[in-house]
Amino acid sequence: MSPEKNNTINSHIKHRHLKLGLFGFGCVGQGLYHVLDETPGIKAEIKKICVKHRNKPRPLPHELFTFDGAEILNDPEIDVIVELIDDADAAFKIVKEALQKGKSVVTANKKMLAEHLEEIYELQQTYGKAVLYEGSVCGSIPIIRNLEEYYDNDLLAGIEGIFNGSTNYILTKVFEEKTSYEDALKKAQELGFAESDPSLDVKGFDPKFKLVIAIAHTFGVFVKPEEVINIGIDRISDLDLKFARDNCYSIKLIARAFKAGNQVFGFVAPQFIESTHPLYAVRNEYNAVQVQSAFAEQQLFVGKGAGSYPTGSAVLSDISALTYDYQYEYKKLHQLHDLAFSNRLIVEAFVSFDLGTAISISDFEHFESGYASHGKQYMVGKVSLEKLHKWSKLDGVGIILAPNASLEPQKEATTTKESILA
Amino acid sequence: MSPEKNNTINSHIKHRHLKLGLFGFGCVGQGLYHVLDETPGIKAEIKKICVKHRNKPRPLPHELFTFDGAEILNDPEIDVIVELIDDADAAFKIVKEALQKGKSVVTANKKMLAEHLEEIYELQQTYGKAVLYEGSVCGSIPIIRNLEEYYDNDLLAGIEGIFNGSTNYILTKVFEEKTSYEDALKKAQELGFAESDPSLDVKGFDPKFKLVIAIAHTFGVFVKPEEVINIGIDRISDLDLKFARDNCYSIKLIARAFKAGNQVFGFVAPQFIESTHPLYAVRNEYNAVQVQSAFAEQQLFVGKGAGSYPTGSAVLSDISALTYDYQYEYKKLHQLHDLAFSNRLIVEAFVSFDLGTAISISDFEHFESGYASHGKQYMVGKVSLEKLHKWSKLDGVGIILAPNASLEPQKEATTTKESILA
Repeated sequence: MSPEKNNTINSHIKHRHLKLGLFGFGCVGQGLYHVLDETPGIKAEIKKICVKHRNKPRPLPHELFTFDGAEILNDPEIDVIVELIDDADAAFKIVKEALQKGKSVVTANKKMLAEHLEEIYELQQTYGKAVLYEGSVCGSIPIIRNLEEYYDNDLLAGIEGIFNGSTNYILTKVFEEKTSYEDALKKAQELGFAESDPSLDVKGFDPKFKLVIAIAHTFGVFVKPEEVINIGIDRISDLDLKFARDNCYSIKLIARAFKAGNQVFGFVAPQFIESTHPLYAVRNEYNAVQVQSAFAEQQLFVGKGAGSYPTGSAVLSDISALTYDYQYEYKKLHQLHDLAFSNRLIVEAFVSFDLGTAISISDFEHFESGYASHGKQYMVGKVSLEKLHKWSKLDGVGIILAPNASLEPQKEATTTKESILA
Repeated sequence: MSPEKNNTINSHIKHRHLKLGLFGFGCVGQGLYHVLDETPGIKAEIKKICVKHRNKPRPLPHELFTFDGAEILNDPEIDVIVELIDDADAAFKIVKEALQKGKSVVTANKKMLAEHLEEIYELQQTYGKAVLYEGSVCGSIPIIRNLEEYYDNDLLAGIEGIFNGSTNYILTKVFEEKTSYEDALKKAQELGFAESDPSLDVKGFDPKFKLVIAIAHTFGVFVKPEEVINIGIDRISDLDLKFARDNCYSIKLIARAFKAGNQVFGFVAPQFIESTHPLYAVRNEYNAVQVQSAFAEQQLFVGKGAGSYPTGSAVLSDISALTYDYQYEYKKLHQLHDLAFSNRLIVEAFVSFDLGTAISISDFEHFESGYASHGKQYMVGKVSLEKLHKWSKLDGVGIILAPNASLEPQKEATTTKESILA
């Protein structure tokens, strides 16, 4: 049982030794450095790290650092660029140049990926080099790899989950410890779960970027982030929280995409979650992905969505996969045809708003119930996603999807309008 | 974005068209047939199916069937043997002969795999053909593939979970619907979750077989099933159930393995589970696997552990992987060295037994509490796994691990013995 013996069976798998060039040495970069350092047997070493700030103290010998990206990109010895910087535009330039120079790329930059995924796909085709990005979607959860490899031939009906750890942390604290929204956000930032600009998280942009990437690997559809509707948790009011508590619901910020006919729908929105729902128990900074497949049925993956080690571990798995020349095949792109992304969806939602806001029963396709008290109004019913999106930008409007909300592709509006409360 | 264009990037991945020979056409075999039939783009077709009973009505044309295995094994056109029969000994013969004849194998036969895993590993080395068996461990959950590929370079500390759907179904019904143990078992059998011989499930053999396979891919250690201790749920008494309910616990049959120093421990036993535990919410026939890794931290996979479609889907994923010559590398076998399996473990358990049974406080390394009523005695404390195993064979003895039970490698016994109740 010597390692040599294994060469008989796996002789077709040649593991290469990789030299890495890092861009960025923040939380994930440092996590990767330690993960790499403590992992025996991984055939990769960091040759150079490009950083921005000249005067920051660094925990590693200064020879390892450079302030000039070209030094890495033009180094013929470096096989793989690991891109871990914040700036999405600069990151895309690095990825593009790396591919043009015959280097593979590992990145966890969800904003950059979401904005440029189709181009990145085409660049990979053109230059024959891989871009891997497992760490970009739900940190440590191996969802991209499983969508690519394991659900390869299964028919996927939908994917949904908690794609953002900081909002889940905030909502968990708000519900379990009855802390205020502001205190929970502050705590999340202190712990490093929330970005310094929390609007990416609380307004639902961060989970939307991840959803855009997941949609490509689930349905083979490239969609631009600006086409996908995101409704955040930032306008959830005390009234909404009280309603949730009175009904033993939790609130989670859910990213979701599904197929209906030849349409793919996808959006991010808060939702009331019943205690029997598999996502109810996903607490604090944990992320979760539920895959609905025709044959494997419901599958749930839970793991840490952020943090230097969990994300560093995902990045390392990608580096490891590059030692045997792994590439995403984007299989669904070739299996599924004529699928188009759409926002023409009717969803069941709770809408709370200040008296006087221009929202009325006639806006609903199907109005279920409503009440008013203390200057606030509450309406529950089926309404178009696009209308919800418009309302979500109004001051004082809280939008939360119903528990197990029905989601129906939009037809011509023919429903009757009730007239309580109009 | 034509499929042809993709050949540029993925030219190194050649998908072969496979001809399959099936052994067995029961629940999983029929599931596979339908899954294959309804999946566009999978490059595999069933050429022949070997079945045992000549007179059973078959839903497919009779030319597809044979009663002579040699017809399949000797057919040079058949690339892959899909082994889906019950009999573990006959199954191993088929696997061995298939490899010798240059065919790859897909199987979900956990008993056969657990009993012969080291031989099967060596046969793969010798003959250079693959044996894939994702469907053997927790049905639809892609745990083997993730252990092999994704946690490749992460340091795994442990793996545990609910590896048996029928006992989980029974325990869920007993707790949630307060049905009797017997009724729940009968219902599980009717639904096809429990084997016709339920002892494999309720005595914990089935999850033990799966654990043996998981241990090989988590720690690179081959262990024989007879070396691994399994304590079932068949002796759980009404007193145990009452205790669980009074304390808001659930009971789950947990399979678990972990590394401590250079020892690997592994066993199957019922355990009290608190409502905040991630496995508490895993209900009915669902399985779950928790992976504890150094960097990715806690990861949870949940999915259906049995059923024709979920298992058929796992089998199909293996077939699909064979179209690009995928093989398990058994990487941990080459990364981790000097690990030895051991049962020398002290665990924290609740032991209930009839008055007069030869169990006393002095048997415990550390005795915590005890009480007696209605002819039954109850002792709680830390005790050796081997002693628990011995007791588990005595009539009227119920053994359930404490919630979050401490597990300590055994040292020489030096603990003080208290003397209440002796």
